[in-house]
Amino acid sequence: MDLWYTEKQTDDFGITAKVKRTLQSEKTDFQQLDMLETKEWGNMLVLDGMVMTTEKDDFVYHEMISHVPLFTHPNPKKVLVVGGGDGGVIREVLKHPSVEKAVLVEIDGKVIEASKQHLPSIAGELTNPRVEVKVDDGFMHIAKSEAEYDVIMVDSTEPVGPAVNLFTKGFYAGIAKALKEDGIFVAQSDNPWFKADLIKQVHQDVLEIFPITKLYTANIPTYPSGLWTFTLGSKQHDPLKVGQDRFHQIETSYYTQALHQACFALPKFVEDLTK
Amino acid sequence: MDLWYTEKQTDDFGITAKVKRTLQSEKTDFQQLDMLETKEWGNMLVLDGMVMTTEKDDFVYHEMISHVPLFTHPNPKKVLVVGGGDGGVIREVLKHPSVEKAVLVEIDGKVIEASKQHLPSIAGELTNPRVEVKVDDGFMHIAKSEAEYDVIMVDSTEPVGPAVNLFTKGFYAGIAKALKEDGIFVAQSDNPWFKADLIKQVHQDVLEIFPITKLYTANIPTYPSGLWTFTLGSKQHDPLKVGQDRFHQIETSYYTQALHQACFALPKFVEDLTK
Amino acid sequence: MDLWYTEKQTDDFGITAKVKRTLQSEKTDFQQLDMLETKEWGNMLVLDGMVMTTEKDDFVYHEMISHVPLFTHPNPKKVLVVGGGDGGVIREVLKHPSVEKAVLVEIDGKVIEASKQHLPSIAGELTNPRVEVKVDDGFMHIAKSEAEYDVIMVDSTEPVGPAVNLFTKGFYAGIAKALKEDGIFVAQSDNPWFKADLIKQVHQDVLEIFPITKLYTANIPTYPSGLWTFTLGSKQHDPLKVGQDRFHQIETSYYTQALHQACFALPKFVEDLTK
Amino acid sequence: MDLWYTEKQTDDFGITAKVKRTLQSEKTDFQQLDMLETKEWGNMLVLDGMVMTTEKDDFVYHEMISHVPLFTHPNPKKVLVVGGGDGGVIREVLKHPSVEKAVLVEIDGKVIEASKQHLPSIAGELTNPRVEVKVDDGFMHIAKSEAEYDVIMVDSTEPVGPAVNLFTKGFYAGIAKALKEDGIFVAQSDNPWFKADLIKQVHQDVLEIFPITKLYTANIPTYPSGLWTFTLGSKQHDPLKVGQDRFHQIETSYYTQALHQACFALPKFVEDLTK
Repeated sequence: MDLWYTEKQTDDFGITAKVKRTLQSEKTDFQQLDMLETKEWGNMLVLDGMVMTTEKDDFVYHEMISHVPLFTHPNPKKVLVVGGGDGGVIREVLKHPSVEKAVLVEIDGKVIEASKQHLPSIAGELTNPRVEVKVDDGFMHIAKSEAEYDVIMVDSTEPVGPAVNLFTKGFYAGIAKALKEDGIFVAQSDNPWFKADLIKQVHQDVLEIFPITKLYTANIPTYPSGLWTFTLGSKQHDPLKVGQDRFHQIETSYYTQALHQACFALPKFVEDLTK
Repeated sequence: MDLWYTEKQTDDFGITAKVKRTLQSEKTDFQQLDMLETKEWGNMLVLDGMVMTTEKDDFVYHEMISHVPLFTHPNPKKVLVVGGGDGGVIREVLKHPSVEKAVLVEIDGKVIEASKQHLPSIAGELTNPRVEVKVDDGFMHIAKSEAEYDVIMVDSTEPVGPAVNLFTKGFYAGIAKALKEDGIFVAQSDNPWFKADLIKQVHQDVLEIFPITKLYTANIPTYPSGLWTFTLGSKQHDPLKVGQDRFHQIETSYYTQALHQACFALPKFVEDLTK
Repeated sequence: MDLWYTEKQTDDFGITAKVKRTLQSEKTDFQQLDMLETKEWGNMLVLDGMVMTTEKDDFVYHEMISHVPLFTHPNPKKVLVVGGGDGGVIREVLKHPSVEKAVLVEIDGKVIEASKQHLPSIAGELTNPRVEVKVDDGFMHIAKSEAEYDVIMVDSTEPVGPAVNLFTKGFYAGIAKALKEDGIFVAQSDNPWFKADLIKQVHQDVLEIFPITKLYTANIPTYPSGLWTFTLGSKQHDPLKVGQDRFHQIETSYYTQALHQACFALPKFVEDLTK
Repeated sequence: MDLWYTEKQTDDFGITAKVKRTLQSEKTDFQQLDMLETKEWGNMLVLDGMVMTTEKDDFVYHEMISHVPLFTHPNPKKVLVVGGGDGGVIREVLKHPSVEKAVLVEIDGKVIEASKQHLPSIAGELTNPRVEVKVDDGFMHIAKSEAEYDVIMVDSTEPVGPAVNLFTKGFYAGIAKALKEDGIFVAQSDNPWFKADLIKQVHQDVLEIFPITKLYTANIPTYPSGLWTFTLGSKQHDPLKVGQDRFHQIETSYYTQALHQACFALPKFVEDLTK
């Protein structure tokens, strides 16, 4: 049977993936949630019509949003993940033995449930005792936190729907307050081919708040254009000046110590967005 | 009007692009050639149903296949491009003032004509006096050449149809013979998500012939998975040991001096293909 | 190359046809005009994203909108076609030797030109000396005509864009005025699966003006649902009471004398729309 | 979420329908069975990638394959349905009070189960005491029957896969034997736009066995071309010579007494297939 999921990543371009069956399909309080069994990518989580993660390529995003800040920080103990209900960031965070507590604040409890059921390889660590899962508004959680976290990752959807507040300068200011004095923050900041203006804006906004602001990239085949960016804001630690001895062996499929540096070497047209 | 071009990059996954009109569509002696005016990517050259290049993202591929070997070589004078009838590699090669002669050997003259007509920003330098264009079989041209070229780029289609010979060890041996004693060669070697075995094979084959064999990557949004690889074989010069003074300013949109190094830092699962 | 034209006939359903090339694609003063070379249907005229006619199945629509009223009228001499710039209705009208003059009033001259160039088997009779082609607003032409025509066919697009006036009671009243005292009129009135309300409305409106109002159907595979309706309004002559001797042999591929009766036997759910 | 089911009805043409979710998807012993919840057509049964029936338009096929032969026969008591596991033909058969027993022989029990679960408005009468359901090979059941049935309907899939034997002259001969001396048989015989040769062959084969052989049509929007044919073979009773008093009131959405005649008036190009 010819059943295909198509995501129009722009009005005029998209990806299309063969679907064996839908595993879940519901309107939650916050968004349309669909879980698809695809032939190419395994199970795929789709929110409001956009691919969030898949069993086959989730490792890229989750490793790169996690290990870059976690190895930049000399001793991350308390970590916050805003969004990220699929549990992939949490899984990577726990690979760092220094982390004593990882808090996940996801606004949509249905995303967590669906991921536990249909994406076990991604969500498997959500029940780890070092993890605290809160179904709550990340924006409000940040507003109430002060000098609490070493590292914060913002693993949000696009700046539409429930995530719209997570792309504002006020939010970044809140994050700065919620971080300890040498804290580090990373947010996914979309792709430079179709969303150059967004990257530019996020970079400008973060730069006004964090002395060290840097953009880095990773290849995610199911995300628009395949070239994804992350914006990192740091109060003290420079990701490009991490001592060799800071790194320790963790099991990864994408991240390497060499890539930790190399991912900050931007294509010229992306670099230009940060100037 | 809803007119969409879809490339199934695998049996179960693909890209889809809105088309305003077809500019050309013919069966040449070698392949099906289609030139599409797309809304997202501008004019797009499609051979045997696969995207070859587009006006909007051509710069990535053409810069990265060219400048990495050309800056690795201390003084490239004579350069050969096998395939590449769209002229994009030639355009980049000519940015290097040391190059006295660039030879293009494209088997399908129709590709050259179509590119000149519909992709002027890509094919514009094919008439440059430093360029010699031959409509000929690249495999045969290589077989007849000896110690002639400083740098050879293999800008071929997938290893099906006319390009099948260009992915054989015999061809790489021929290239080694056609190169001068400190010559360098680069071939596009597809993507690691869907064609891991091909990358592995090419790397093994080239490694048996060239003492310095390295894989590097670039993000090309209209190519399968968005993550493209290039395999570089070099007789003497190591691309990672290029002196700072070797670089000179050229106008690029993707390539930078920093990326020249960084593009060799591979994602772990890609690095594993080279071991 | 996988190039497909898709017409979403509703928000949730459509047809899709493989395209070899676009033959023409332009924004006219009135609409978007595309001429496609399809593999299944031959050349296909698309206006504002909707299939108007194709070389392979045009005969159904053009025969059925023409021969039913023309055989119902005892002696049609002067015939008007409103719309129908592709010339298909004209071709069928001229098969009736009684017709001395067939006037075509098409608002968009580009449709006529494109059809002459790319649909010769349909548009071929537009240059027949019995035909008068006017590039003009059909609504205005009707408004200026009085007791002039024996038969009028309204071969319009959907009631959006340039054709919106052609689905109003005022227009039907104008047609009654433009017809002679025993004149007959037919309008295409869309399909009962997706546009039941439209059929109902047209039938009601025509019925208030024409004593004999009847709906009939034909199967057109490239039109929404495949089941097309025509609304016929007649001042005196009943299409179901045509004498056997009225019919004469004409060459057709769809219309037959038996179908002239049978096409008025409606599926129950369609019949219900006329009550 | 953009999830669409596409049926390529030919290599170059098809329909496409938006899907909310898959309700069932499994490989049975005989075929791939998919049950889709579509937005336009309600639940849709798909076998081996082809639409079998939908909640919205099932009435056309099921009424027309049933009531035409059942009203042609003066007193049908025992009826056989070969295939038809969705139960739609049975539902219509039971509207005839003369029918004492309706036997359904469906080779794939999974089709029956899936229809009971997901197509209750179609399959609802399968548990009626007048109905006997056998999960068995229709070809073998026919071979073992002799002078047993008044009316037989062959409600099969396309002549590929499990249904291939149901389009052979040997099968029609078996049906003749299984029917009583004034029995009537109907088989769906595909569409004249894409399968003209099949219609021609079936008509020829049935004509050699049944003195009265006639083709009739109905509009089914989810079937290829929208114009479907049925081939009727009768030993004595002519469907066009049914007395007015034979008809009685039944509830239908498509079939009417007038259509009983009119559906045999074929488009010229379809009529030509019967000569």
